[in-house]
Amino acid sequence: MRIVDAAVVVTSPGRNFVTLQLRTDAGLTGLGDATLNGRELAVAAYLSEHVVPLLIGTDAHAIEHTWQSLYRGAYWRRGPVTMAAIAAVDVALWDIKAQVAGLPLYQLLGGASRDRVATYGHASGRDLPELFDSIRARLAEGYPAVRVQTGVPGLQRVYAVAQPDADTVLPVVEDWDSAAYLRHLPGVFESVRNEFGPDLPLLHDVHHRLSPQQAARLGRDLEPYDLFWLEDVTPAEDQSALRLVRQHTTVPLAIGEVFNTVFDYQTLITERLIDFVRSPVTHFGGITAVKKLLDLAAVYGIRSGLHGPADISPVGMAAAVHLDLAVHNFGIQEFTGHPPAAAEVFRGGYTFRDGHLHPGEAPGLGVTLDLDAAAAYPYRRAYLPVNRLHDGSVHDW
Amino acid sequence: MRIVDAAVVVTSPGRNFVTLQLRTDAGLTGLGDATLNGRELAVAAYLSEHVVPLLIGTDAHAIEHTWQSLYRGAYWRRGPVTMAAIAAVDVALWDIKAQVAGLPLYQLLGGASRDRVATYGHASGRDLPELFDSIRARLAEGYPAVRVQTGVPGLQRVYAVAQPDADTVLPVVEDWDSAAYLRHLPGVFESVRNEFGPDLPLLHDVHHRLSPQQAARLGRDLEPYDLFWLEDVTPAEDQSALRLVRQHTTVPLAIGEVFNTVFDYQTLITERLIDFVRSPVTHFGGITAVKKLLDLAAVYGIRSGLHGPADISPVGMAAAVHLDLAVHNFGIQEFTGHPPAAAEVFRGGYTFRDGHLHPGEAPGLGVTLDLDAAAAYPYRRAYLPVNRLHDGSVHDW
Amino acid sequence: MRIVDAAVVVTSPGRNFVTLQLRTDAGLTGLGDATLNGRELAVAAYLSEHVVPLLIGTDAHAIEHTWQSLYRGAYWRRGPVTMAAIAAVDVALWDIKAQVAGLPLYQLLGGASRDRVATYGHASGRDLPELFDSIRARLAEGYPAVRVQTGVPGLQRVYAVAQPDADTVLPVVEDWDSAAYLRHLPGVFESVRNEFGPDLPLLHDVHHRLSPQQAARLGRDLEPYDLFWLEDVTPAEDQSALRLVRQHTTVPLAIGEVFNTVFDYQTLITERLIDFVRSPVTHFGGITAVKKLLDLAAVYGIRSGLHGPADISPVGMAAAVHLDLAVHNFGIQEFTGHPPAAAEVFRGGYTFRDGHLHPGEAPGLGVTLDLDAAAAYPYRRAYLPVNRLHDGSVHDW
Amino acid sequence: MRIVDAAVVVTSPGRNFVTLQLRTDAGLTGLGDATLNGRELAVAAYLSEHVVPLLIGTDAHAIEHTWQSLYRGAYWRRGPVTMAAIAAVDVALWDIKAQVAGLPLYQLLGGASRDRVATYGHASGRDLPELFDSIRARLAEGYPAVRVQTGVPGLQRVYAVAQPDADTVLPVVEDWDSAAYLRHLPGVFESVRNEFGPDLPLLHDVHHRLSPQQAARLGRDLEPYDLFWLEDVTPAEDQSALRLVRQHTTVPLAIGEVFNTVFDYQTLITERLIDFVRSPVTHFGGITAVKKLLDLAAVYGIRSGLHGPADISPVGMAAAVHLDLAVHNFGIQEFTGHPPAAAEVFRGGYTFRDGHLHPGEAPGLGVTLDLDAAAAYPYRRAYLPVNRLHDGSVHDW
Repeated sequence: MRIVDAAVVVTSPGRNFVTLQLRTDAGLTGLGDATLNGRELAVAAYLSEHVVPLLIGTDAHAIEHTWQSLYRGAYWRRGPVTMAAIAAVDVALWDIKAQVAGLPLYQLLGGASRDRVATYGHASGRDLPELFDSIRARLAEGYPAVRVQTGVPGLQRVYAVAQPDADTVLPVVEDWDSAAYLRHLPGVFESVRNEFGPDLPLLHDVHHRLSPQQAARLGRDLEPYDLFWLEDVTPAEDQSALRLVRQHTTVPLAIGEVFNTVFDYQTLITERLIDFVRSPVTHFGGITAVKKLLDLAAVYGIRSGLHGPADISPVGMAAAVHLDLAVHNFGIQEFTGHPPAAAEVFRGGYTFRDGHLHPGEAPGLGVTLDLDAAAAYPYRRAYLPVNRLHDGSVHDW
Repeated sequence: MRIVDAAVVVTSPGRNFVTLQLRTDAGLTGLGDATLNGRELAVAAYLSEHVVPLLIGTDAHAIEHTWQSLYRGAYWRRGPVTMAAIAAVDVALWDIKAQVAGLPLYQLLGGASRDRVATYGHASGRDLPELFDSIRARLAEGYPAVRVQTGVPGLQRVYAVAQPDADTVLPVVEDWDSAAYLRHLPGVFESVRNEFGPDLPLLHDVHHRLSPQQAARLGRDLEPYDLFWLEDVTPAEDQSALRLVRQHTTVPLAIGEVFNTVFDYQTLITERLIDFVRSPVTHFGGITAVKKLLDLAAVYGIRSGLHGPADISPVGMAAAVHLDLAVHNFGIQEFTGHPPAAAEVFRGGYTFRDGHLHPGEAPGLGVTLDLDAAAAYPYRRAYLPVNRLHDGSVHDW
Repeated sequence: MRIVDAAVVVTSPGRNFVTLQLRTDAGLTGLGDATLNGRELAVAAYLSEHVVPLLIGTDAHAIEHTWQSLYRGAYWRRGPVTMAAIAAVDVALWDIKAQVAGLPLYQLLGGASRDRVATYGHASGRDLPELFDSIRARLAEGYPAVRVQTGVPGLQRVYAVAQPDADTVLPVVEDWDSAAYLRHLPGVFESVRNEFGPDLPLLHDVHHRLSPQQAARLGRDLEPYDLFWLEDVTPAEDQSALRLVRQHTTVPLAIGEVFNTVFDYQTLITERLIDFVRSPVTHFGGITAVKKLLDLAAVYGIRSGLHGPADISPVGMAAAVHLDLAVHNFGIQEFTGHPPAAAEVFRGGYTFRDGHLHPGEAPGLGVTLDLDAAAAYPYRRAYLPVNRLHDGSVHDW
Repeated sequence: MRIVDAAVVVTSPGRNFVTLQLRTDAGLTGLGDATLNGRELAVAAYLSEHVVPLLIGTDAHAIEHTWQSLYRGAYWRRGPVTMAAIAAVDVALWDIKAQVAGLPLYQLLGGASRDRVATYGHASGRDLPELFDSIRARLAEGYPAVRVQTGVPGLQRVYAVAQPDADTVLPVVEDWDSAAYLRHLPGVFESVRNEFGPDLPLLHDVHHRLSPQQAARLGRDLEPYDLFWLEDVTPAEDQSALRLVRQHTTVPLAIGEVFNTVFDYQTLITERLIDFVRSPVTHFGGITAVKKLLDLAAVYGIRSGLHGPADISPVGMAAAVHLDLAVHNFGIQEFTGHPPAAAEVFRGGYTFRDGHLHPGEAPGLGVTLDLDAAAAYPYRRAYLPVNRLHDGSVHDW
């Protein structure tokens, strides 16, 4: 079975998505998500201009071989653009292989290790009342766990806390003060715990903004509030930074949504500096690579917690849910849903019920792409926010 | 003195036991315990089909040589089945040798280092009143130390906490939630301490269910309640997992009831990650191997706390008690007694008085096996429980 | 799809094999190899008495779940008997799944990463002329690489060097002298290189017989002869022994044919002490476990070299060949063929041509078991040899 | 059985020996060697003045307990005087216990692991011809291995190389020049190898005289001559010194004749810096302590090579031979015999034939002490030599 056709589809039904569609001489079609939030067209170009010509005529079954060919054959390895492109090819090929097999993809990954996939949702508020409302909204939607983000006194705009006027054609500029944040956050979690009781799993995302020393202090300060995890406490490319954090606190640590290969985790996993790996299928080279990563993590008792906000397309999310269902060391899946219009473009893939996901039993990935609907939502340039300190200098966002 | 006969006896007086009986041309009989709870017949086959033919005609006195021959000569080393089989041979040969010497076995192991062997018993309850009753029952029986296990709100069946309808022909399925357990346990120990005062040695068995990060937190949370030990906090085959736990807490750590050779302890002992070694004579290659293990542990100030629930047969328990009496770095012996019918099959071996064991002064191990009584209790297949998370996935039991 | 029937078949067509045959309510049959050379009936009992009752009625598709249930649910983990039993279940389930998919098993493992699987064969001789003849025979058979074993002056019987009268009902006793071996071996390899030129890949198996210091010296002494690998230089359960060897020589090191779980490799791989992993599918928990092991090895640039003499049954060898074809970091496959009668019992599985193996394109594993033929070859007890030093003491064989 | 009498016997039949004789209320007598070459009377005083009063009335069977009582109960632990005294008590008690059992001591230590105990003898010469003659003499006596010591040009007296006028009432003064020694020694071994061929096991004792850098160089320089071991290369109390040596050479290293407890070996063994442990039963706390040491060494694949020149009395040598026969990881036993008059004082104990020792089958240690004969050879003060550099400063002897 040969690959005979490949299309790179860029569409924006509420937000931008990049999708690779491969077709084989057996008439089968496979989909892969290549969305890289704020840098979408680079991946699209990487795929259509450089990768697609390499794929035509190759064996659609040889997924590992194709993965290695694209990874090693580019010479310039790693990085979000490269690995999102490879991920799209990999997922599309698994989609096709599972259709050939007549089985839902999770069956090819070893079958189901659980009945369904637990998720966490996002809550945030500029102040406690707004935050409490947001948490209650998530609970009402059935989420069994909630990520809590909060405004910080003295700061205008903070990561993940909605602001009315955030829409611009250039990056929104947020402001940051680590000291103010460190002073404010523990009290917020104390209030949330008092309000929602000891049982609700709470998560928090620091979004790479602290030094190891600051992160160590924050971890200790948050220990009384029993977090499910504390995420991305330091800039993620600096693996050894977490040694200091780990030395000072037993707070569970999650990291990896910006990682692209297993080498980003080598120190973190083998030195047991983290508790959850966060890399999505979409940015980490696909099912092939994330399955290997989770198997490595399992040797060290580390669980999954895959990145899953709306920029992971329905295709990327379906791949994640198949994987979540199959691996033994699943932890939790981030899930926020997609803009309503996305449902016109992407059909099927998984169901969300009682705060849990299931990929369904359709052969393959289970997602279809409506090319006409996609064409109705052309690409719109968009950026992630940037972060400034009070003196105007750039800080990690 | 040559081995001339060997019998593998499988009997179930209340529970299954596998016993090896060796006979020499001097007319002496030695007993060794080969019981591997839930996998008994695999050890019985390993012994009768593969080991016994190697023993006939060999020198009954050459225990070290026979041990090395069975360990190295099988080529496929280690593992619970292999090492339980070797243990049975080893203990039976020590039993014979001590009978030749006309001395109780402990005398050949260097003589008595203490007057008697302190034990701990098991207490558990679904809630605090039931748990307190159970602790009081153990104290009334004379136990100087008590292992405390507790039900967890929201969980139906938990390790070591009895449930009325637990008897099935397939494994009982228990349920598990590490977060609920971590929240609940410290309060239970606070209550137990308040009720029973500061002096009673309390133990707890986590039964391999936590990640290193969770175990580190639990250890710290339990520090105020002054545990005698915290047992099996993480899956035991991953020795380096305890580095993280040890870094964060000074709670005494015990491990090793599922270990089979000294190599399972190499990192744990030389890096001083534990305080008590738990391997029973029965699953660790016998007196020869456990004596060496305890001598190694002594170099690092680590003490013994040998596994000893009812699946360690009266033969295996007798071997343990002889060893406990002899070694200097004894810590404590787990002891729960055996089903009443076991006393029809196995006679003698040790006495239990005022919460302490003594092996007695009969030459050898001091236990006799009644083959007729054994035959009256045929093997009944039985399994240890298994553990499930709320999503149906398997968790360490 | 449920498992409805399981049979454990012990047969001896030229040598003993243990095979598990699972049947599902869809009428499909899967095969798994559970042969543990010299301890076959212990695995057979482990399977038939303890594992099979757990399998009946379970989902045949849930391979990962079943693997974890058997591994964690036994409580007593690891060891050759346990892991051979789990391997048989795992391979039989993959065989069934691939038949459901209508694909050869390698396709479910990511497809083919290569056209065919290179092998090495065994050559040995009591002296150089006999050894040269043996090497020439292997080359004539098409082997692209040859493992070279040699008699040692002063020793009567050495590992892998055939002796005319080696057949007994008890283990053959071989003799050993590490010093004589260390003096003799480099000259043998010098002669072989002189005779067969620089290009022929040469391997050698030390079979766990040296101390780290001796192995370090041997590795250095053999460096001029450019070995493909030097195998099992020290007793394998002592992972950190290879640190010393690695420090002194760059000779490629292979190990692991007696390993059972990834924890036997944790130090070796993460400290980069070896170059090839040798664990067969049969003794390491099956396709599921060896695939994960090879993926871990790949992170460290370590390649496969799976154990494959005749005691790996045609079923176990087929599983290995499917895996070899699929993984990227394949190194080489040991292959010696099977006794002629084995072909009456096991049909299909793979082809051997020009020194290379291929699993073929039949759905599943591609091997069938003829139960009538199997019954015609009843089990015959057999042992691996044992090793003695000149003073009569036991040495690692 | 109680200890009722203890005698400390100092005698000098050709050289000084200190022997402890314990008697029990059962009429049994046990012997222990307490000879500390050149410091004999300090041990005799330690025993008679401080230890004996503690022993009277105690349980003769409680060997481990007595050992711990003497070791921990003195408060001032370790050191050659203390540990030789404890060794004498320990060996005497094992002698008694084995007599109670009616078994030769090795049977209580696990039985025989080998047929007989290989030894090495001493050869030395001021120049090559004298050295060759000495080696030939040892071979004629049947020794299977020979320790080679040599004069060094420019030095008057060197360790272990006999000089005509060495007898004084004060220590003989030897001279030393490490640079001259390092230049000379490799050529000597080259000549010995040329003369005696590749098969003869050769040993050499550096006697603690080199820096780690010098020892590393010497080890490498001697590698072509294939030593069985290189002994005591650096001052022995500095364990970490051997790290540097080990890093540079694969020459087998032996050390420990001046060690007293396992803590002298802790780094050496666990970091695999040595290949042989050399501590005699006599100076290391007896059978109890050396058995534990050898068991620890076995975990790391390290073998025994117990110190055994004439200052180890026939009693101490008998204890060593029982132990050598029993442990699995025996390497070699140093043995030089004793002055002829010693045979009048000490009877039995072991036989030396064809270069091998055997302890015999008499119950206990097998040695008897003739008190009358002992009294006929009163103590004579004697010293070990001392070492001077050319400028008169002291160097390690």
